[in-house]
Amino acid sequence: MNQTKVKRIGILTAGGDCPGLNAAIRGVGKTAIVEYGMEVIGFSSGYTGLIHKQYVQLKEKDLSGILTLGGTIIGTSREKPFKIVTEEDNDKPALIKQNYHDLGLDGLVCIGGNGTMKTAHLLSKIGLNVIGIPKTIDNDVWGTDLTFGFDSAVNIATEAVDRLHSTANSHGRVMIVEVMGHNAGWIALYAGMAGGGDIILIPEIDYSIDKVCNKIQERYDNHKPYSIVVVAEGIDHPKTMSAARYLSESIQSRVDVEARETVLGYTQRGGSPSPMDRILATRYGAYAAQCIAEGNFGTMVALISNVLTTVPLEEVGGKMRLVSPDNPLVIKCRNMGVSFGDE
Amino acid sequence: MNQTKVKRIGILTAGGDCPGLNAAIRGVGKTAIVEYGMEVIGFSSGYTGLIHKQYVQLKEKDLSGILTLGGTIIGTSREKPFKIVTEEDNDKPALIKQNYHDLGLDGLVCIGGNGTMKTAHLLSKIGLNVIGIPKTIDNDVWGTDLTFGFDSAVNIATEAVDRLHSTANSHGRVMIVEVMGHNAGWIALYAGMAGGGDIILIPEIDYSIDKVCNKIQERYDNHKPYSIVVVAEGIDHPKTMSAARYLSESIQSRVDVEARETVLGYTQRGGSPSPMDRILATRYGAYAAQCIAEGNFGTMVALISNVLTTVPLEEVGGKMRLVSPDNPLVIKCRNMGVSFGDE
Amino acid sequence: MNQTKVKRIGILTAGGDCPGLNAAIRGVGKTAIVEYGMEVIGFSSGYTGLIHKQYVQLKEKDLSGILTLGGTIIGTSREKPFKIVTEEDNDKPALIKQNYHDLGLDGLVCIGGNGTMKTAHLLSKIGLNVIGIPKTIDNDVWGTDLTFGFDSAVNIATEAVDRLHSTANSHGRVMIVEVMGHNAGWIALYAGMAGGGDIILIPEIDYSIDKVCNKIQERYDNHKPYSIVVVAEGIDHPKTMSAARYLSESIQSRVDVEARETVLGYTQRGGSPSPMDRILATRYGAYAAQCIAEGNFGTMVALISNVLTTVPLEEVGGKMRLVSPDNPLVIKCRNMGVSFGDE
Amino acid sequence: MNQTKVKRIGILTAGGDCPGLNAAIRGVGKTAIVEYGMEVIGFSSGYTGLIHKQYVQLKEKDLSGILTLGGTIIGTSREKPFKIVTEEDNDKPALIKQNYHDLGLDGLVCIGGNGTMKTAHLLSKIGLNVIGIPKTIDNDVWGTDLTFGFDSAVNIATEAVDRLHSTANSHGRVMIVEVMGHNAGWIALYAGMAGGGDIILIPEIDYSIDKVCNKIQERYDNHKPYSIVVVAEGIDHPKTMSAARYLSESIQSRVDVEARETVLGYTQRGGSPSPMDRILATRYGAYAAQCIAEGNFGTMVALISNVLTTVPLEEVGGKMRLVSPDNPLVIKCRNMGVSFGDE
Repeated sequence: MNQTKVKRIGILTAGGDCPGLNAAIRGVGKTAIVEYGMEVIGFSSGYTGLIHKQYVQLKEKDLSGILTLGGTIIGTSREKPFKIVTEEDNDKPALIKQNYHDLGLDGLVCIGGNGTMKTAHLLSKIGLNVIGIPKTIDNDVWGTDLTFGFDSAVNIATEAVDRLHSTANSHGRVMIVEVMGHNAGWIALYAGMAGGGDIILIPEIDYSIDKVCNKIQERYDNHKPYSIVVVAEGIDHPKTMSAARYLSESIQSRVDVEARETVLGYTQRGGSPSPMDRILATRYGAYAAQCIAEGNFGTMVALISNVLTTVPLEEVGGKMRLVSPDNPLVIKCRNMGVSFGDE
Repeated sequence: MNQTKVKRIGILTAGGDCPGLNAAIRGVGKTAIVEYGMEVIGFSSGYTGLIHKQYVQLKEKDLSGILTLGGTIIGTSREKPFKIVTEEDNDKPALIKQNYHDLGLDGLVCIGGNGTMKTAHLLSKIGLNVIGIPKTIDNDVWGTDLTFGFDSAVNIATEAVDRLHSTANSHGRVMIVEVMGHNAGWIALYAGMAGGGDIILIPEIDYSIDKVCNKIQERYDNHKPYSIVVVAEGIDHPKTMSAARYLSESIQSRVDVEARETVLGYTQRGGSPSPMDRILATRYGAYAAQCIAEGNFGTMVALISNVLTTVPLEEVGGKMRLVSPDNPLVIKCRNMGVSFGDE
Repeated sequence: MNQTKVKRIGILTAGGDCPGLNAAIRGVGKTAIVEYGMEVIGFSSGYTGLIHKQYVQLKEKDLSGILTLGGTIIGTSREKPFKIVTEEDNDKPALIKQNYHDLGLDGLVCIGGNGTMKTAHLLSKIGLNVIGIPKTIDNDVWGTDLTFGFDSAVNIATEAVDRLHSTANSHGRVMIVEVMGHNAGWIALYAGMAGGGDIILIPEIDYSIDKVCNKIQERYDNHKPYSIVVVAEGIDHPKTMSAARYLSESIQSRVDVEARETVLGYTQRGGSPSPMDRILATRYGAYAAQCIAEGNFGTMVALISNVLTTVPLEEVGGKMRLVSPDNPLVIKCRNMGVSFGDE
Repeated sequence: MNQTKVKRIGILTAGGDCPGLNAAIRGVGKTAIVEYGMEVIGFSSGYTGLIHKQYVQLKEKDLSGILTLGGTIIGTSREKPFKIVTEEDNDKPALIKQNYHDLGLDGLVCIGGNGTMKTAHLLSKIGLNVIGIPKTIDNDVWGTDLTFGFDSAVNIATEAVDRLHSTANSHGRVMIVEVMGHNAGWIALYAGMAGGGDIILIPEIDYSIDKVCNKIQERYDNHKPYSIVVVAEGIDHPKTMSAARYLSESIQSRVDVEARETVLGYTQRGGSPSPMDRILATRYGAYAAQCIAEGNFGTMVALISNVLTTVPLEEVGGKMRLVSPDNPLVIKCRNMGVSFGDE
């Protein structure tokens, strides 16, 4: 066991749930306990537990058997303690600081997405020893190449695309599948490529409905009456309906084919994490514990070019990692005949 | 090899696609070829291929490797040759009869749901040697206890419910998942029971939104802030939105909880059939070939109390197998505290 | 809630673990608590817990979230309290009776396979109010058409067969997959049929290695250099090696092909139960609770022709449900060209 | 479409089959046809097809629908044309060169593992325009960080470990699972980490059976009677039995626990590739086509620090990428209490 002055740390999970949260908690906790002899507590429901001093002790046995579980054993919430809505909100940061010290914490691990990292940075600025762990199925956290949850989401989305191929082929239909991704098209790009999508539409690349329909018509003319369209929820479309619905209606009104839409929704963020997400979450967790032991605070753990490292929380907040239109995967898809609706 | 006067038979798949269609085609074909020495052709796109004499020869090697494939290798359509819309439609039945004889067929296997069986019966009445094989993911074909496609659909729906549990628990939310079933609630009942749903709503049992909300409130009061609602698409609800959406909005307006909906849609009918669906489809197919060899025409193969048998096509058409409100599974769910929204 | 004189019941799981044990425990427990107002305890590690008075209280909340878990939350063992090896073993039955009364039990639910049912019967004979629930992945419990665990095992075995097809085809190899089944060939028959096996070998049908090799040679001569053999572990073979290994060596020494074996082993009995196993286990559990409430003791719950019923424990013990050589599935396989190694 | 002087290329798959081969073939083929207007042929059964001039034309439609299929549509073999056993073997290289020119090929894509790359290099040296694509489930090809097939194999192995947890916990047993990896322990390391293995044994780290048993005894003493051991097939052990069997027998003879072994075998290399393997294989394939168009020959495509690049075939042959004992994942596992049998 390693020597460290750190005696007691806290963990919290904030923002939307995501496969791998428990693996990350386990990674932090087991490493902190086994390697560094720290004591570990878990705050309930994200920053809410920090404000209200609600927490549970996490002993080694509490971390057994959670590696494979979806969700988070300590709960999560969208509480943003630095967002001032009512007057009482002004007290939250001070309350958190007070609780942190009352509980004798030497460090705090905040697991979450872009918003969580922003809050983590603000906590860091008021003097807490904070380390962030990035998670999001969307893979859009700035500063890291990969977040856990993404691989699981791509698996689920691809499995859905695989299933829709049956119906597309048997009925000669256009099947449109909408996946998550408000700002970033990573899931659509990966699931589209892995599922053999004919058209992939992502927020980062402007599409025109005419070009989408041209592609479908062209395939139809080449005796391919079926097409698979994989679309991110965040593409430009009328907000009165889902993106998939809009495409479906538009296509049917312009091309003489049947089109059907499917919106995958919340199934993409639940369930047991994929093996690769478990490993990434465990690595992030273990490394976060090490960072705390080494006094590397105010940072977020990250994977850059396959190497674990840290980036300053200051640089992460408020930014977003998007798909570049000349991303090599986009180019390769285009070279194989896939349309992004823009040419 | 068995002796039979039957020399040549046709197969077609009609209606919506469904896991197990290829297994059924293979079951008919391999048995017809290997055991009875028949020749087998497959009509393209359901009854459309029969009208336009579009078909492919199905040799034993064409049936290799299709057991596990979703969809149907010969295509399907919703063509109903006895439905008269334009004047030309009047010719279809005669055209079919002509083609059947021109092609030297001694029998025709029609694989489909309720509508397909109705057409099969009408073809039988104009003199074709028809045998029906029931398929539908909804399990609502009258005259048989089970149709292939149902087990696969229940698997997919249950897996989705499993995933949503993560989010429901982590966020303390009500998650509503809408499954297929316009008239019959079989998928909702089975997936709800297998997925541990707290509330199950099916078209056969009238629900009240008040009672649904009471149940959710009661759970909330008992420190269970999360609930899983499994709902069939066909329950009574405003047609301007999906059933799941209606429930989500109604619940949020009456109970102080977050509710989120997911509509599974077409993912339920695609992909590789489950092992049990492959076996059932194979048995139906093999038995249909045997029925043809034995001259048992004008019937649909069926599974009743686990025994393969046939029922007259005449009795099948226009009826539907629904969930009885006192179905033993419904009773068992109620006894375990599950609500059907009616008490 | 129903009126019943029964106040307190015990549950135990004995024999090998099996997907669905927790679903059955939950089915018994939730029904007993919610519908009948009983108190429920769970004995640890099968009959061992009954002998040593080791148990846990099972409240409704303890039964939440276990529906989907593999294994058994109360543990299991192969303890047979009526098997006399040492002199002390003589005391076990009396000890059990004493504990049963000390704990104020009105009924005891024993979940297990053939051996467990035999013990349950003996406990019934010395005066305990016993009800049995059959489980086994092998599906060989006498008196019921179906046991939970079987569907899950068939799913896992079929998935393995599906995978081996890739290698068989790509390399032109004979792939032999050994599945569980010491006495009964149900898993091999179902997985063989669902996986498109070319040869299926089960303990109930005597095979000859010559006929197996002839079939492989015949396929080879017909330009099918690959074959899939699905074999139950219990077929006649030298005990110095696995059945699959024996076949692999025998085939390679007689036919000019490459053969490779895979023994699935324990992966067949672990993991989350399939939806259908969860439902069957839940039904059995709920019905067992009802039987206790109604005073229907000394019986095992069973599914016969799709109907839940009970059979006397007296008739179950020491028997086994085997595959009949003229089982309809065997006949259908033969008609499609599958060999059982006997012709 | 891009301009290139290359008119016609060949593809072959050699060595053991592996999920993603078809995705790679499709990636090469679609890019070559769509982007560069090349003609593409596929040689049958690896280098055998090149020697005997056996091949098929691969048009765009032949590449449709193969993305998700396991195995390889053009077959594979372990033929090594530069290995001289009989006198006739001397002619093979010249024969290959002759065929290459007769068929008017401008380039040849060889998809395979270490052995295949060695042959590819030798073909390059005798004047063929060769480009290699690395595949192996073992992930041990030198010169690239990742090979397709590995992610799929890890998924399958992890799923098996997940299943064995049920039995381990329910019975209080030591479950040993043997995964592939003759020389490299990547699959064992990843599946062990993702599956929460307590002990991971790999060829690269010398273990002692005493230390393995100590760890198991220590867990037993800490009231953890169950343990999961994940072991690569290639660890040091008596060749009369499998590694898993050896461990099982050794543990049972030294510690008072039940141990059971499972050898995953060929199930790890079959079936549909994971989404990430499909993407990697597609990228490799697309990039190989681009390399040919650009005249970048005598190289193998590779992924280094997440970037697609090429390495000289000359440097790849005869080397192997192994797990370093101070690999960060090994360290992280140790820090969480996992034993590698060496301390």
